Amino acid sequence: MPLVVQKYGGSSVADAAAVRRVAARVAATVREGNDVVVTVSAMGDTTDELIDLANAVTDAPDPREMDILLTAGERISMALLAMAIQSEGIPAQAFTGQQAGVITTSHYGRARIIDVAPARVQKALAAGKVAIVAGFQGVDPESNDVTTLGRGGSDTTAVALAAALDADVCEIYTDVDGVFSADPRVVATARKLSRITYEEMLDLAASGAKVLMPRCVEYARRFNVPIHVRSSFSGLEGTWVVGDTDEGDTMEEPIIAGVAHDRSEAKITVIGLPDVPGTAARLFEAVAKADVNIDMIVQNVSAVQTGLTDISFTLPATRLNDALAAIEADSEAIGYQEVVTDDSIGKVSLVGAGMRSNAGVSAKFFAALRDAGVNIEMISTSDIRISVVTRSELVDKAVRAVHTAFELDSVEGEAVVYGGTGR
Amino acid sequence: MPLVVQKYGGSSVADAAAVRRVAARVAATVREGNDVVVTVSAMGDTTDELIDLANAVTDAPDPREMDILLTAGERISMALLAMAIQSEGIPAQAFTGQQAGVITTSHYGRARIIDVAPARVQKALAAGKVAIVAGFQGVDPESNDVTTLGRGGSDTTAVALAAALDADVCEIYTDVDGVFSADPRVVATARKLSRITYEEMLDLAASGAKVLMPRCVEYARRFNVPIHVRSSFSGLEGTWVVGDTDEGDTMEEPIIAGVAHDRSEAKITVIGLPDVPGTAARLFEAVAKADVNIDMIVQNVSAVQTGLTDISFTLPATRLNDALAAIEADSEAIGYQEVVTDDSIGKVSLVGAGMRSNAGVSAKFFAALRDAGVNIEMISTSDIRISVVTRSELVDKAVRAVHTAFELDSVEGEAVVYGGTGR
Repeated sequence: MPLVVQKYGGSSVADAAAVRRVAARVAATVREGNDVVVTVSAMGDTTDELIDLANAVTDAPDPREMDILLTAGERISMALLAMAIQSEGIPAQAFTGQQAGVITTSHYGRARIIDVAPARVQKALAAGKVAIVAGFQGVDPESNDVTTLGRGGSDTTAVALAAALDADVCEIYTDVDGVFSADPRVVATARKLSRITYEEMLDLAASGAKVLMPRCVEYARRFNVPIHVRSSFSGLEGTWVVGDTDEGDTMEEPIIAGVAHDRSEAKITVIGLPDVPGTAARLFEAVAKADVNIDMIVQNVSAVQTGLTDISFTLPATRLNDALAAIEADSEAIGYQEVVTDDSIGKVSLVGAGMRSNAGVSAKFFAALRDAGVNIEMISTSDIRISVVTRSELVDKAVRAVHTAFELDSVEGEAVVYGGTGR
Repeated sequence: MPLVVQKYGGSSVADAAAVRRVAARVAATVREGNDVVVTVSAMGDTTDELIDLANAVTDAPDPREMDILLTAGERISMALLAMAIQSEGIPAQAFTGQQAGVITTSHYGRARIIDVAPARVQKALAAGKVAIVAGFQGVDPESNDVTTLGRGGSDTTAVALAAALDADVCEIYTDVDGVFSADPRVVATARKLSRITYEEMLDLAASGAKVLMPRCVEYARRFNVPIHVRSSFSGLEGTWVVGDTDEGDTMEEPIIAGVAHDRSEAKITVIGLPDVPGTAARLFEAVAKADVNIDMIVQNVSAVQTGLTDISFTLPATRLNDALAAIEADSEAIGYQEVVTDDSIGKVSLVGAGMRSNAGVSAKFFAALRDAGVNIEMISTSDIRISVVTRSELVDKAVRAVHTAFELDSVEGEAVVYGGTGR
């Protein structure tokens, strides 16, 4: 019998009525002849409410107790979903991360999955039951304490379970119909992709596409778990995220998967650095001490007459002040003249595995931006992605121009209606 | 170092401010030189809200999943309390029932504690930490599933931990100042008892006193755990519930501990039963099948001319319809003429270990009721208790009359102010 792992996020189980709708979908999947394992997030805003409570009793919540607190959320949703599935006439049992054998590192709040030993889940499946597993949580085997997996944790739980159970597919249910060639709120003619590779999905996710977290895609790629991203509301076929195949149909794949954008970053430019070995190392060691993740880095050519150079890099805007403080604290060791920050930037990225074998993609990309009057401030590339930084207010125009230039717009009749007029 | 186990109920941790107040009290107990273990219930109305959610997704919640759901409540309060104690500068760690070694039977929703193996709690204490333990929950070692202990569960958790840890005292914090000689809302002059025996407390609890559940008192008696019932608001010395001592001070103990009352029961009278062996057995077997607990039973003398008799018994009013249906379903086997129900009854009980050695207590009790014009419908006695059933509307008058007759009223100046004027 085929085995399907389904994951439902917080908005899919926001209240009792939503839980019953999910239960009906799970029951239908069982009646179609599948074994089903369900991973579920906390209901609606539960996690935020629990964080508010913690902040109301202490300024600095202990990470261990915070994980105990937050895992109450999935405990509630998994029990309710199991009950609702039972009342559809389908046997079901709920399991905590620990009971489902989700073994993690001991890093409270940001644990990584080490192993999944789902003996109880397999036993439930063998007994003809649906197994509901709490997302986002696991157990540290040393301390026997509960741990949480951090952002994207529930998706990762689902993929990890699918890998451990050798499932046929991991269905990620969300509030959109799948992965699109661009954000439909920006590009009204964006197309739903029927199929995308792990690598393309990773680059889209890293470039600002919100539908899947890079972490869960990385896990799926490593264990070759097919992901099906689809809507919990429409029930339509969504987007399959799969490995590169050697079969003929890859010939028909489009060169470009899509255009992503991201307005959540800021830019720091450090001016007047000595152009000698070790300068960049000292700068980014200072930033790393503040635990800030860097995205793009650009170093200008040194001015010959001064022997000085500038380095610009982008980072999450929320971490701008921390990074700035870290640089200023080490200013003597780094030895710069000035630091300039900019939190009005936006990033536009073109992603597609076909770039590898198709010349001229970059040229076409830059030409589209030029024709749209979009100035480029930074450029960064990988083998299947080109990203540029521009002004935040030019991002929408840039995304639309590139989307059209690469003929990604859906033809009349298959236009996606999403978020009204796309504004 | 003395070891204190403290238990705080839902009203003591109703919101973040209340959690901080409890944390301050725990911190003060630590600073006074005690090791402290805290058992905590779910915040305020959390449990009721979770039950409402379950009822919104299914008509018949599975007991196993219900226990997963309900234990989310203590998970939240225990984590918040640990954080709040930490922010008082006192190291603290929260533990689930499972982590604290609370081993139970497998009866979801009404599990019984089999054993407490609190190795992690002891380790935390040895490391100078306060251990917070979720009340109301344990683990079934066979299935490794969470279980809940049912009504009075958190008090029982606290007493069981105190027994396993050989604590010096188990403090039960509540919203009243202790155990009173009568309900202060009925008798304005009711006295707070400074000391009461386990047996008296058991009979008071079984007779309607709400402050402690019989189950937790029974556990404390078996393991000789001193309980100190006190207010989480006033901080005053409360009531000690302890074993009978052979010391001289028992001579000074009052004959009567207090007067309890209960308006939560109903009465069923089965009329015209054949007065032959096996009649009562058939009747109460029928009731037992409906899982209804019986309190008092009275059988009238048989009328010689008919050979028929009547049996009356009391039961929780909430179960009246279930019991009635069970009796009517077995009517042929039981063979009665008529069943009459009455849900307007009240029970008044006099409790005191001194009754054993003091003649005339019953006579004085009945005389007080007669003088107050209270008609008696049923009588039941144990060696330290006399209970009567009367009309519900006569209960307050009866309680006051008996309280005064046994000189339980507090003298001027020590009158208890409770709930305004005591109405």
